[in-house]
Amino acid sequence: MNKKLSAAIDIGGTNTVYGLVDEQGHIHSRGSLPTTDSPDAEGLVKAVCLKIKDLLYRLGPEADLIGAGIGAPNGNYFSGCIEFAPNLNWKGIVPLSKYFEENLGVKALLTNDANAAALGEMLFGAAKGLKDFLFVTLGTGLGSGIVVNGELVYGHDGMAGELGHVILIPEGRPCGCGRKGCVETYCSATGIRTTYAELTGTSPDTKIEAKYIYEKARSGDKQAMESFTLTGEWLGLALANSVAYTSPSTIFLFGGLTMAGEMLFAPTKKSFENNLLRVYQKKIKILPSSLIEGDAALLGSASLIWKTIK
Amino acid sequence: MNKKLSAAIDIGGTNTVYGLVDEQGHIHSRGSLPTTDSPDAEGLVKAVCLKIKDLLYRLGPEADLIGAGIGAPNGNYFSGCIEFAPNLNWKGIVPLSKYFEENLGVKALLTNDANAAALGEMLFGAAKGLKDFLFVTLGTGLGSGIVVNGELVYGHDGMAGELGHVILIPEGRPCGCGRKGCVETYCSATGIRTTYAELTGTSPDTKIEAKYIYEKARSGDKQAMESFTLTGEWLGLALANSVAYTSPSTIFLFGGLTMAGEMLFAPTKKSFENNLLRVYQKKIKILPSSLIEGDAALLGSASLIWKTIK
Repeated sequence: MNKKLSAAIDIGGTNTVYGLVDEQGHIHSRGSLPTTDSPDAEGLVKAVCLKIKDLLYRLGPEADLIGAGIGAPNGNYFSGCIEFAPNLNWKGIVPLSKYFEENLGVKALLTNDANAAALGEMLFGAAKGLKDFLFVTLGTGLGSGIVVNGELVYGHDGMAGELGHVILIPEGRPCGCGRKGCVETYCSATGIRTTYAELTGTSPDTKIEAKYIYEKARSGDKQAMESFTLTGEWLGLALANSVAYTSPSTIFLFGGLTMAGEMLFAPTKKSFENNLLRVYQKKIKILPSSLIEGDAALLGSASLIWKTIK
Repeated sequence: MNKKLSAAIDIGGTNTVYGLVDEQGHIHSRGSLPTTDSPDAEGLVKAVCLKIKDLLYRLGPEADLIGAGIGAPNGNYFSGCIEFAPNLNWKGIVPLSKYFEENLGVKALLTNDANAAALGEMLFGAAKGLKDFLFVTLGTGLGSGIVVNGELVYGHDGMAGELGHVILIPEGRPCGCGRKGCVETYCSATGIRTTYAELTGTSPDTKIEAKYIYEKARSGDKQAMESFTLTGEWLGLALANSVAYTSPSTIFLFGGLTMAGEMLFAPTKKSFENNLLRVYQKKIKILPSSLIEGDAALLGSASLIWKTIK
């Protein structure tokens, strides 16, 4: 009997990971290569597809590739293109799905990495059976995927779900997008580094990692603890505002910052309830994602295929 | 041949309007009565249903009632109940759809007035054929209906789409909901009255109508003109933030304040584009609603039926 598999690809600014995932969310094989090794997108796709074909060959003749799901910054589901991704070297609009289809001979579907992870949570994680939820990734920036009535929200142009670039504090911190006060300038690894730098009076350019702030906070450092409290307060406000749009039953938090556990979740939940409109109070859960950090990207990308091609 | 009709009811704090609407959006007959004439919700429903039966009787034996659509503040689509409506005298949770079903013997569907108007725009107005749009009512407060992929967003609890209660300015103006800085404290008839009072140094309790501020602005009064500019700037920011959630192709503005035309639309559009994330710039329209103010409530309520019962 043939084993149906989806190719899963996650393109990051530094590394591109790839693998083969079945309909039950089992990752059969995987690998990674540096995104910047290839001079352009076509070269990267060609290199990744050679690797994927090799993985398929090793699995034997029963491996049946039925599609390729791709997660990438600024990936547009409708067009299959990456549009003006600030963290990638490729300029303008890049027809990524087309390149994968040409190389692999199967349908390729693209979306941004946070949307893909939201689908992964829905198909293979704790959001199974949930119709309305919000998935938030707290990494270098803040990404999000919004699910309404069992479907990912893509919007009219395929670019919906950018909670990280909602303006939380008008005229607030400068953001990489060129505007000011975006949620991700407060609620992300970068955000907490800025907050800690502000509280300690040091330069935000200092190479302090969010993990260092966490360790300091664990050892009782007041400014480090306060950094987590403030981050949670801002995140709680941002999430409470989000609820007023799509009223999710659950909000999943994912990514490096969530490793801080209650140090982040406790102030977030408190601020969230305090900032919620009355009709939403005490009925919306904030939970850590159930996806394993190292698997989420592949499971998410593969979900694009398993959600649409059966 | 029978003429299929939907009963349409819009319950406001002051008046309740009702009518009979066909599938083409033609209002066959209508009337209204003071909401506060009845001591409780059951009494109001009974009085309204007697009036509706009378309208049906006058239309003759061919009139075929197939359902009742109801728009009301804090109306919950899933439960058919009004939940803690601040502008109505009824306390707690009121099973409004059930009352209508008992009195009329047909299916009754309820949602909040802004959601209903969004459906009206989609079935009978300028949003025909649009899959993703936002509908915003600028009245005493600010209401909204969000359409994603051709369906109204109800959320997990039936209470989604409360743009008016997104916190635009943290620790900003006090809101009737008990929190601070909500969009509707800036972008509504009440909001512009507060803004004008702040600019002129008068008390916001003074009985100045938004229409008076409009007339003053038209005659060249600087503070009145500035009130519209500021309102537009806040509204543009609030709408730009909304786009980052569901990426609508079009935003429709409805209600009293929109009568100010370009005086409101020009600063709103300018601020909107300035505050949009780059990927959304120059592709989203802000338009006045095509629904006539006096018809919108009935067309919207009836749309609940025509969208689901065919």
